Amino acid sequence: MKPSIPQGTRDFGPAVVARRNYIFGIIRRTFEKFGYAPLETPTLENLSVLTGKYGEEGDQLLFKVLNSGNFLKKQKGDVVKEEVTPDDLLAGPRQVLPKIAEKGLRYDLTVPFARYVVMNRGTLTFPFKRYQIQPVWRADRPQRGRYREFYQCDADVVGTDSLLCEAEIVLMMCEVLNGLGLTEFTIKINHRRVLSAIYHALGGEGTETALFTAIDKLDKIGQDGVEKELRDKGFGDDALGRLFALLGVEGTFGEKLERLQAAFVTAGVTPENEDGYKGLQDLARVQELLQGFGFAQFDHLDFDVTLARGLSYYTGCIFEIKINNVNMGSVSGGGRYDNLTGAFGLPGVSGVGFSFGVDRLYDCLEELQLFPTDATTTTRCLLVNFDAESETAVLPVLRQLREAGIASELYPEAGKLKKQFQYADQKGIPYVLLQGSEERAAGVVKLKTMQTGEERTLPLSEVVAELSN
Amino acid sequence: MKPSIPQGTRDFGPAVVARRNYIFGIIRRTFEKFGYAPLETPTLENLSVLTGKYGEEGDQLLFKVLNSGNFLKKQKGDVVKEEVTPDDLLAGPRQVLPKIAEKGLRYDLTVPFARYVVMNRGTLTFPFKRYQIQPVWRADRPQRGRYREFYQCDADVVGTDSLLCEAEIVLMMCEVLNGLGLTEFTIKINHRRVLSAIYHALGGEGTETALFTAIDKLDKIGQDGVEKELRDKGFGDDALGRLFALLGVEGTFGEKLERLQAAFVTAGVTPENEDGYKGLQDLARVQELLQGFGFAQFDHLDFDVTLARGLSYYTGCIFEIKINNVNMGSVSGGGRYDNLTGAFGLPGVSGVGFSFGVDRLYDCLEELQLFPTDATTTTRCLLVNFDAESETAVLPVLRQLREAGIASELYPEAGKLKKQFQYADQKGIPYVLLQGSEERAAGVVKLKTMQTGEERTLPLSEVVAELSN
Repeated sequence: MKPSIPQGTRDFGPAVVARRNYIFGIIRRTFEKFGYAPLETPTLENLSVLTGKYGEEGDQLLFKVLNSGNFLKKQKGDVVKEEVTPDDLLAGPRQVLPKIAEKGLRYDLTVPFARYVVMNRGTLTFPFKRYQIQPVWRADRPQRGRYREFYQCDADVVGTDSLLCEAEIVLMMCEVLNGLGLTEFTIKINHRRVLSAIYHALGGEGTETALFTAIDKLDKIGQDGVEKELRDKGFGDDALGRLFALLGVEGTFGEKLERLQAAFVTAGVTPENEDGYKGLQDLARVQELLQGFGFAQFDHLDFDVTLARGLSYYTGCIFEIKINNVNMGSVSGGGRYDNLTGAFGLPGVSGVGFSFGVDRLYDCLEELQLFPTDATTTTRCLLVNFDAESETAVLPVLRQLREAGIASELYPEAGKLKKQFQYADQKGIPYVLLQGSEERAAGVVKLKTMQTGEERTLPLSEVVAELSN
Repeated sequence: MKPSIPQGTRDFGPAVVARRNYIFGIIRRTFEKFGYAPLETPTLENLSVLTGKYGEEGDQLLFKVLNSGNFLKKQKGDVVKEEVTPDDLLAGPRQVLPKIAEKGLRYDLTVPFARYVVMNRGTLTFPFKRYQIQPVWRADRPQRGRYREFYQCDADVVGTDSLLCEAEIVLMMCEVLNGLGLTEFTIKINHRRVLSAIYHALGGEGTETALFTAIDKLDKIGQDGVEKELRDKGFGDDALGRLFALLGVEGTFGEKLERLQAAFVTAGVTPENEDGYKGLQDLARVQELLQGFGFAQFDHLDFDVTLARGLSYYTGCIFEIKINNVNMGSVSGGGRYDNLTGAFGLPGVSGVGFSFGVDRLYDCLEELQLFPTDATTTTRCLLVNFDAESETAVLPVLRQLREAGIASELYPEAGKLKKQFQYADQKGIPYVLLQGSEERAAGVVKLKTMQTGEERTLPLSEVVAELSN
């Protein structure tokens, strides 16, 4: 048989793992520097926890795991409790599924986080700041850049509505991107209540959902497309005129805040309708906190009134990052939610979080050639194996290199030098060390730098000093 | 609903993740120092890859994942190819399973590694040294210390039969255990061909399999139990006498080698029957290589003639680690195999590898109180939040701490000091920093060391210098 892996999954070989770990490392260090602590939840979750949390489509995309043992019979002790019958089978998957599968694979990191918070509410310290870097699984149709198994990197804090969290999310986003060497990016920020205020400013036609759904597609279908869609949903000329006037407000972060406030007043959204004001106030406080931090990257921050982040559970500030000059969707997104744990019986816990998409970041770094060259290799030095005698004689050299923390290996077989050098070359090992009987007698080694081809004869102590750096 | 997690799975909260990462870090650094490079394979594997590789019992313990979409019908394009029928259902799981589930969860790291090597044989550089740290899943009955989802940490090299690899496995085992602070341990080593030689030395009664199966249980059922089992399998008094004489050989590693060789000659196992000699020769070469490395821990190395490592695919040296004075099974094991990739159509690839059990190492370190205290916390310093004004004013302090790489957080809400100190305490944050308006005016901060309760007033620069260390 010719072995294969399932569609939409990937093997990550050594070079790719090293580069992915480079990205994970920068994200992890940033999260930890801001006081987020690591959490890991199981791959398998009960379907009762997962189902109904991701919408109808999400339920379809859950990977379901067969009950173990005789999955056609559900047993408790010796008593068969339920059994799949031929009638069930004829009735279709909806009838059969609950009887044969009770577990599913993690679909995202947010629902397991909410489940964890509710299960451990008695012992957790709130506000609870956690980050989580783990794979998730979706039975989506695989296509370029979309996988059935992929990692998410989430950071969330629950149990506080302090806008300090939002300001720090902007800081963390910048720190990760700067750390990866990405300099051309836009952090889009908006607020769900600003969107609500816009809806109210239009005069109450149509529905809020119709409005958000249409605005969210502005990038894809353009102003004409949005206009057509909204007209079909009952929005009139007057409302559409006001809408595009509001969406067209320009200026810096601060200027946009002022201009929108004025526009809302003109449109009759008064302070009594607190939605719009609360949204703008929140964003102003985020701006103030960032200024307090001495934040110097306001030019990367775009108050984007058209940002809607789908129809998900967000209720406050929302975020999204776009890498400029790269043809790719957002590499990060997030926002504030007020009822994450409500589905599990713990209402009223406010939180805010965001997530990085590692596959997209990886592709960006590759396209922009931003991976450091030493992110791809582990071994620093290969020792050549001349013959059985030298194999034993060179072991103290190998030991000293490793004791100095230099990842090193001795080619495990005496053999052609060409093959050994090829091994170093293909594995990306930067240095090859040779010690034949002559060098051994003289108490020196020969060091070849693979990139330049330069060969030097020198004492081992100097090699150790050089490679330790 | 009250949410729960599936039986045999675990959430790892921040303190536990930090401790687990401490263990993973030491293992990873050791593997890399010896030239092993990281590999990651998908969680989902095709059942055609997994089935039949772990024996009948293993097949039962595979977690199977339902085909997505309408799993009752197998579709290719628009054509329904197969459909589960009521007759299938009546025929039972063996009939239904292949039609509704084509994927399963990774059961170990060895089979996916073999699959990867075969799929990528054209581009890999041999000898191929890889390590892999990933979770695996087994639908085993959960019990204390046995989970359905747990991590394995494997290192293997394939494409060479050099005994340097075996010697380095002993070195890596010692380096990891020493790195974790474990000083009382035994690395048991044996060779499958020594076991074969013992069988031949008994005179050809019974079967080799019966002999190995019985010896493997010596720890559990004692000499009497083994004798009884072997008598039932056709071994006579004479054979049993010889067996326990051989198993009873004592001495250092080197002495045992010599004494066994002499005993084999006496028992009529001649050099023409190469098995026993090859086994002893291999072990002697491993000893020689270790001496070449200046290995100073021979007292930890036990040539244990009774070590059999089940009836798995091993063909050469075998290893196992036992932590002394802790009531627990082996924390690591491995050995050489000659035909790992044969099942996937690539015969004759020799390899050797070993694996650490992280859950058991974790329990050992906990029982022996060997976790460093700073392995449990991420945040070094909490800044107190007095009021809205101080919240903004203290931000530059927070920024400077973080710029110095000190993981720090500002309590996100102005509130009772007691609550904020409790937060630091419960999160294990070692320092709390206070800057009220007085300190701010004086250009200083107040630093409280949580463990001692000591409070000092000093310039921020001194705090940065102190906490950076």
